[in-house]
Amino acid sequence: MATRSPKKQAKRPGRPARAGGGQRKSSGAKKAARKSGSRKAAARGKASGTRARRSVYFFGGGRADGRAGMRELLGGKGANLAEMSRLGVPVPAGFTISTVVCNEYLEGGRRIPKRVKDEVMAALARVEKTMGGRFGDAEQPLLVSVRSGARASMPGMMDTVLNLGLNDRTVEGLAEQSGDRRFAFDSYRRFVQMYGDVVLEVPHDRFEAALADVKRKRAVEADTELRADDLAGLVATYKTIVREATGRDFPDEPMRQLWGAIGAVFGSWNTQRAVTYRRLNDIPAEWGTAVNVQAMVFGNLGDDSATGVAFTRDPSTGDRRFFGEFLPKAQGEDVVAGIRTPHPVTREERRAGDPAALEEVLPGPYRELRRVAKLLERHYTDMQDLEFTIQDGRLWMLQTRSGKRTARAAVKIAVDMVRERLIDRDTAIRRVDPGSLDQLLHPTLDTTSAPPPIAQGLPASPGAACGRVVFSAEAAEHAAGRGDKVILVRRETSPEDIGGMHAAQGVLTALGGMTSHAAVVARGMGKCCVSGCSALQIDPSTGRASIAGSELTEGDVITLDGSTGNVFKGEVATVAAELGPDFDRLMGWADRARRLAVRANADTPGDAELAVRFGAEGIGLCRTEHMFFAPERLLAVRRMILAGSREERAAALAEICPMQRDDFFGIFRALGGRPCTIRLLDPPLHEFLPHTRDEVAELAADLGIPVAELDAKVAQLREFNPMLGHRGCRLAITYPEIYEMQVRAILEAACGCLDEGIRPRPEIMIPLTSGAEEMRVLRELVEGTARTVLSERARRVAFSIGTMIEVPRAALVADRIAEVADFFSFGTNDLTQTTMALSRDDAGKFLPTYVERDLLPADPFVSLDTEGVGRLVELGLERGRSTRPDLKVGICGEHGGDPASIRFFEELGLDYVSCSPFRVPIARLAAARAALGGDG
Amino acid sequence: MATRSPKKQAKRPGRPARAGGGQRKSSGAKKAARKSGSRKAAARGKASGTRARRSVYFFGGGRADGRAGMRELLGGKGANLAEMSRLGVPVPAGFTISTVVCNEYLEGGRRIPKRVKDEVMAALARVEKTMGGRFGDAEQPLLVSVRSGARASMPGMMDTVLNLGLNDRTVEGLAEQSGDRRFAFDSYRRFVQMYGDVVLEVPHDRFEAALADVKRKRAVEADTELRADDLAGLVATYKTIVREATGRDFPDEPMRQLWGAIGAVFGSWNTQRAVTYRRLNDIPAEWGTAVNVQAMVFGNLGDDSATGVAFTRDPSTGDRRFFGEFLPKAQGEDVVAGIRTPHPVTREERRAGDPAALEEVLPGPYRELRRVAKLLERHYTDMQDLEFTIQDGRLWMLQTRSGKRTARAAVKIAVDMVRERLIDRDTAIRRVDPGSLDQLLHPTLDTTSAPPPIAQGLPASPGAACGRVVFSAEAAEHAAGRGDKVILVRRETSPEDIGGMHAAQGVLTALGGMTSHAAVVARGMGKCCVSGCSALQIDPSTGRASIAGSELTEGDVITLDGSTGNVFKGEVATVAAELGPDFDRLMGWADRARRLAVRANADTPGDAELAVRFGAEGIGLCRTEHMFFAPERLLAVRRMILAGSREERAAALAEICPMQRDDFFGIFRALGGRPCTIRLLDPPLHEFLPHTRDEVAELAADLGIPVAELDAKVAQLREFNPMLGHRGCRLAITYPEIYEMQVRAILEAACGCLDEGIRPRPEIMIPLTSGAEEMRVLRELVEGTARTVLSERARRVAFSIGTMIEVPRAALVADRIAEVADFFSFGTNDLTQTTMALSRDDAGKFLPTYVERDLLPADPFVSLDTEGVGRLVELGLERGRSTRPDLKVGICGEHGGDPASIRFFEELGLDYVSCSPFRVPIARLAAARAALGGDG
Repeated sequence: MATRSPKKQAKRPGRPARAGGGQRKSSGAKKAARKSGSRKAAARGKASGTRARRSVYFFGGGRADGRAGMRELLGGKGANLAEMSRLGVPVPAGFTISTVVCNEYLEGGRRIPKRVKDEVMAALARVEKTMGGRFGDAEQPLLVSVRSGARASMPGMMDTVLNLGLNDRTVEGLAEQSGDRRFAFDSYRRFVQMYGDVVLEVPHDRFEAALADVKRKRAVEADTELRADDLAGLVATYKTIVREATGRDFPDEPMRQLWGAIGAVFGSWNTQRAVTYRRLNDIPAEWGTAVNVQAMVFGNLGDDSATGVAFTRDPSTGDRRFFGEFLPKAQGEDVVAGIRTPHPVTREERRAGDPAALEEVLPGPYRELRRVAKLLERHYTDMQDLEFTIQDGRLWMLQTRSGKRTARAAVKIAVDMVRERLIDRDTAIRRVDPGSLDQLLHPTLDTTSAPPPIAQGLPASPGAACGRVVFSAEAAEHAAGRGDKVILVRRETSPEDIGGMHAAQGVLTALGGMTSHAAVVARGMGKCCVSGCSALQIDPSTGRASIAGSELTEGDVITLDGSTGNVFKGEVATVAAELGPDFDRLMGWADRARRLAVRANADTPGDAELAVRFGAEGIGLCRTEHMFFAPERLLAVRRMILAGSREERAAALAEICPMQRDDFFGIFRALGGRPCTIRLLDPPLHEFLPHTRDEVAELAADLGIPVAELDAKVAQLREFNPMLGHRGCRLAITYPEIYEMQVRAILEAACGCLDEGIRPRPEIMIPLTSGAEEMRVLRELVEGTARTVLSERARRVAFSIGTMIEVPRAALVADRIAEVADFFSFGTNDLTQTTMALSRDDAGKFLPTYVERDLLPADPFVSLDTEGVGRLVELGLERGRSTRPDLKVGICGEHGGDPASIRFFEELGLDYVSCSPFRVPIARLAAARAALGGDG
Repeated sequence: MATRSPKKQAKRPGRPARAGGGQRKSSGAKKAARKSGSRKAAARGKASGTRARRSVYFFGGGRADGRAGMRELLGGKGANLAEMSRLGVPVPAGFTISTVVCNEYLEGGRRIPKRVKDEVMAALARVEKTMGGRFGDAEQPLLVSVRSGARASMPGMMDTVLNLGLNDRTVEGLAEQSGDRRFAFDSYRRFVQMYGDVVLEVPHDRFEAALADVKRKRAVEADTELRADDLAGLVATYKTIVREATGRDFPDEPMRQLWGAIGAVFGSWNTQRAVTYRRLNDIPAEWGTAVNVQAMVFGNLGDDSATGVAFTRDPSTGDRRFFGEFLPKAQGEDVVAGIRTPHPVTREERRAGDPAALEEVLPGPYRELRRVAKLLERHYTDMQDLEFTIQDGRLWMLQTRSGKRTARAAVKIAVDMVRERLIDRDTAIRRVDPGSLDQLLHPTLDTTSAPPPIAQGLPASPGAACGRVVFSAEAAEHAAGRGDKVILVRRETSPEDIGGMHAAQGVLTALGGMTSHAAVVARGMGKCCVSGCSALQIDPSTGRASIAGSELTEGDVITLDGSTGNVFKGEVATVAAELGPDFDRLMGWADRARRLAVRANADTPGDAELAVRFGAEGIGLCRTEHMFFAPERLLAVRRMILAGSREERAAALAEICPMQRDDFFGIFRALGGRPCTIRLLDPPLHEFLPHTRDEVAELAADLGIPVAELDAKVAQLREFNPMLGHRGCRLAITYPEIYEMQVRAILEAACGCLDEGIRPRPEIMIPLTSGAEEMRVLRELVEGTARTVLSERARRVAFSIGTMIEVPRAALVADRIAEVADFFSFGTNDLTQTTMALSRDDAGKFLPTYVERDLLPADPFVSLDTEGVGRLVELGLERGRSTRPDLKVGICGEHGGDPASIRFFEELGLDYVSCSPFRVPIARLAAARAALGGDG
């Protein structure tokens, strides 16, 4: 991870790279090139600056021509091997042919230049000298691997060629050296197959067919059952296949093999697959790939040989203890394949019945491994994941890299390393992936005791939940009223289900994606949710349900894992979220490092308390419509909607007003003086009306009007595109009484708080504004109502009036809107829907295809579409501040809790982000990392 | 109308106005000020440049200190009065106090400066001398009117004060002069009331109450029945009312009256009403108003007196004949009020039974009037609408202005005047309002024979239509098949009604606004439509309908007037559209003057022919979905939609392909080599599926699948927000076969045309594109299919591939999209919906309120929202051309036929507009006017 901001590095474009320093620019240069659009020029500038230098870089025997910082020239793998060798870590010797040669090769008629050939020969001689074998020698054959290695990781771009240097003569030497003829011929067989496939482009299946043929003839099942002679015969067959397919003999001469492999690696840079990968990942073609040629070592040459992996600390808990696994007399692939059960590395790990630890079997190499592990952790100042091979009692390190770890381990390791003075606090902040904190914040299933899941849906909202199945929101509320734990199971959810979702432990839906109503609301509530579970079938007409074929009845107990999308029958034990002092310490550092304020989206006093507990500095979005859905209020709300006159409407609203006031009072109290942005009513009114015939009939009876009349009213309010319909502030333009009531409730609640000594800071927010004129009218409405209430109460309350920016037009005319708005809050959910003409509820049919086929960089409802929607946010911000320089600007969409989006908001200079309470710690950490300018 | 482009004038901001030339800048300066945002500075710059000059400008007796060009200083009215006087036209003398004084007055403590007072006294003396009376004199009293007059017309900003100068003494002089005591006291009574209301701000209703009181006491109905003594008594009562309301006596002294009125006019500039009006109309406060003080003349002073109006040419036909109406012994108000039937002005007009013409009664003043009329028409080079008064045998002109006229008259007058060398061709183009041409292009009702309408809806699509009522699209098609003329009457229409709409003479709907489905489609077809007729009730369950209370039965004959929204019972005669040679000549001039190309939106060979006939240079939008709705194709389309596999889908598409090919073939042939932009399938697939239970059952039977299965499929395809759903090119990402079939049909049709010697120019357009990646994939799809078809046929067809820009994101990333698109067509209908988050189908509930309350400048679906949506169009254009400088850019929304929007597109530099065939001539003319830089 670069310690300097890539932005700063990008300030020197076109300047030739300097030895030892230039390579640091890689990530910055990439960004700069992307921005300026002159990617080619930037990449060429660098390449030409280094053209005159060395082409081949030797490493091994405690020396190296390169080092870790030279990724640009040597690729990631080559640079890392050089660094290890330089540190004195035992690495099989080898050399790296630089990326510059790749361009020369591709542009110069696919020939390896003479100069490079000479350097390769010289480097190969150094490898022979260091390793004590000879390339192509029949007695002491040196075998090598040939691998590509680009500046950026490009997985699967090209396969590796192993065991290069084998032919009918050298295989005998290997057989003798190893004392294992079968091993030698299996290595040979694999080499010919790999080389034939990768270098000579002979279709892979032909070799597979020949192999299957031999096994059939020998009547064996596994490759391992073939004997040395079978394998020798197979080599001959393979060579015939090659001759038939290419018209030429398989190259037996090791140097020819080597030149062929090097050329193939360079050529692989321009395969269709690689070109596509680069386009999708914004990697300039001019970067080229390096080629690594490295001596082979074998962990299976005898009893003194072994292979294994180790971690410098526990990747699961973060505890500072060395541990790992190994297999005696085995190759790396065997450990990964899991055919043999690995043995523990340390004595400490060894449990009863375990075979002997490496510490006991090979104490010398073990001590060396511990020494190297310590050295590498100190050198890279991070927990390392190591791969090693012991050949004839001698330790060889094949790989070291920062180890993957759980969120819990990441936090502990980062905080411990600060304590150990290995890293500073900023680095600690950069070491924890904010997104991973989700694991820590929600209760999780105890996976050790879980049975196999019965079905799987989408991991829509993390956490674990267990309860009895209910099929309606009413049933959920009813059961919750009795103290029962329930899971709300629905085909899909709608705003009417909010109460039921609140009451349930978790939500399971058959339809809808990661951003469906159920998913979004559940995440907002911090409630576990599995959505889009296609194995779930609910017949709306019969009310019967089944899951994965078996019937699902109301009252059945199920368990959901919102982090994996798994659904379990019965109860599975859960583990509560445990944050601990390390977590608090890290978050404290993050708070000091960040510039962006972090608020929460919260609609209830309970959510507000939770938000404060998770470190929110206030509420950035308090939706008021959820308050309208409470069953005891819904009738008054419906009466208001169906009112025939302004007076009737006002009477119904007067009923709702004291309830809203109590809501706000509770929220203000929970916030204790922190600011609270309250969004006035937003959804279209028809969302509050019943949909089914029965519900309509019931409501008509309640209201004492004919069903036909109610039907007509419901039909009249129905909309083709509710998203673009009569909602948000448009409601207040036609029915000003609604917002008047809400403003009254807010300010009466605020006055009530003053009596208790709390100074609330309400920020009244107008939704769906699209122009300055409508904002002006509504500002006047809010101010007028506020004046009335405050003079009635003879109180003074400091409040501000702002607007959501969630309609593209609002961003375009933000300069004029800012003249009458104290703050902006970008509602990036709706702004994404309108800017992309993409209905979140309907996108499930095509959005996954778009993301999968890279037609969009990511799901734009998860991570802000910076290229499109982000441009509008930028424009709105610039224009808004052009007329009101002190405009406070935040965002309150789902993106407020997404680290990638937060990085973008930091770059733009927004004032705050607001997200669901459970994502507040994530946002705090992400904001800190963004402020530090880190890449991750 | 200014003859120089306001743009050019605006190039000299801040330079002080020069006498005689500076005032021309007014409209240019306004625009410049609006653009730069420094409106105040610009306005102040001008004001200070003229501050040192004269404050009061006399006119009358063939002289004037001012002239027509000095609007800025004298206001419109003052400048015009000065001009008439200068021309020697007999105008009652008077003077104008300049707008500069208004600012001085308002900023200087509401006092009229001494210098101004002196100038007023001097000017008043000149008026007395010219008119031969004396202000305040008891024997020969000069009375004056006091009126405001701003640079821009601000109707209703301030009422006029007439008869100023009357008091208890001068009224006697007036009585004697006029020989009509009642007239004198009625004038006095009116003066006190007007002055009390306007200047002294005494509530109007108090005077009305006193008047009603007197009438009650005298037991009369009309004001005119009151006698002189009653009126004298009323004056006294009025004065008491004034004293009670203001605490002061009514000012009897004429000079005090005058200063009071002048101050009140200046003060009226800052009333709330005026401030609001200015804000809404973008008029700078710094402009101020002028005050006009003018001698009163009376057309009712005796038998030699009269008053009337006249036109220099026939405003209905445009014929070059002078004509008008007058009333002997009457005041101007009497003509307007219509209480007395006016007499003809010329002998020629006089019909049997008519009273004597002015020409006969007062031949001297008549000759003078003819002379003046000719003079004014020549001077203003336009048909004039004149107001005149004859007092004691002497003609006075009170007003001249360009007369309103029908479209037919406008065309004829403009062409005639070019012939007469009064104006040049560019001016002729500017003289015809493009929007008014609509009247000419559609058949219209013969209003002379029409009975009163039975109901009124919205004038959704102009023209007239008569036929028998049908209630379904099928019935319409059926009846049309029999050759019957029908009117399709629906609650609202949907895409399934297209066929029926085509078959019907006109469409009447109960719901929906000017931009509802019915309205838009009907306009596109050039078919008469009345939408949103709330008096129309259709009960969907019983199928019974009524209109304005009386039953409406299938087969009843009704007539629609799409230009007024009127609905008539029975048949009303219509007048066919008559264009004639004048129209053709004017359009020819327009074609030479315009820069923008004009294309038509057309989906059928018939529409394409019509478009060519109306002068379209090609098709800018050929929608392909209407072709899918034809009854014989719909089953195949539905089979395609419901297909379970790619193969089934391909089989259904193969059925549709030849039909689409024939469609395109017909269109290409109609275009004869003109370009044709074809939009590939756009609507969501569920639009093609049945909605009612019966239709579903029928389709299930047709397809041989269970109803439940079809139900499930229909439910699955249903969308919450179809506008933002799975449609446009998203269909092709998931089902590429659809576009492949369409591209095949297009290119096969093109190959077929080549065989007939026609070189078609297809331009294939991708709808709803939102990013470069998706456009790239679809471009490849189109190119691949095209290659296949052209190689099959061994033909070469020149075609291009472009995209709609109708999603905000597309405009934001237009630079990248342009890399893979040959052309852009802004789909401003959808772009407006998404940019404003405004569903056209749902906006009816609040959009009218927005337009009415000036929260939006206009209905954004009629006239482009230049501030918001227009900004995105500009951005998309700039960015698109930044990567592809030769990008062809047009628009194909409803706005393509709207003159105001066309002006905007001309300013942006678009290449073409496309609109419905019937609006093509409007667009041609509007484009010409826009190119000429005219204001109107």
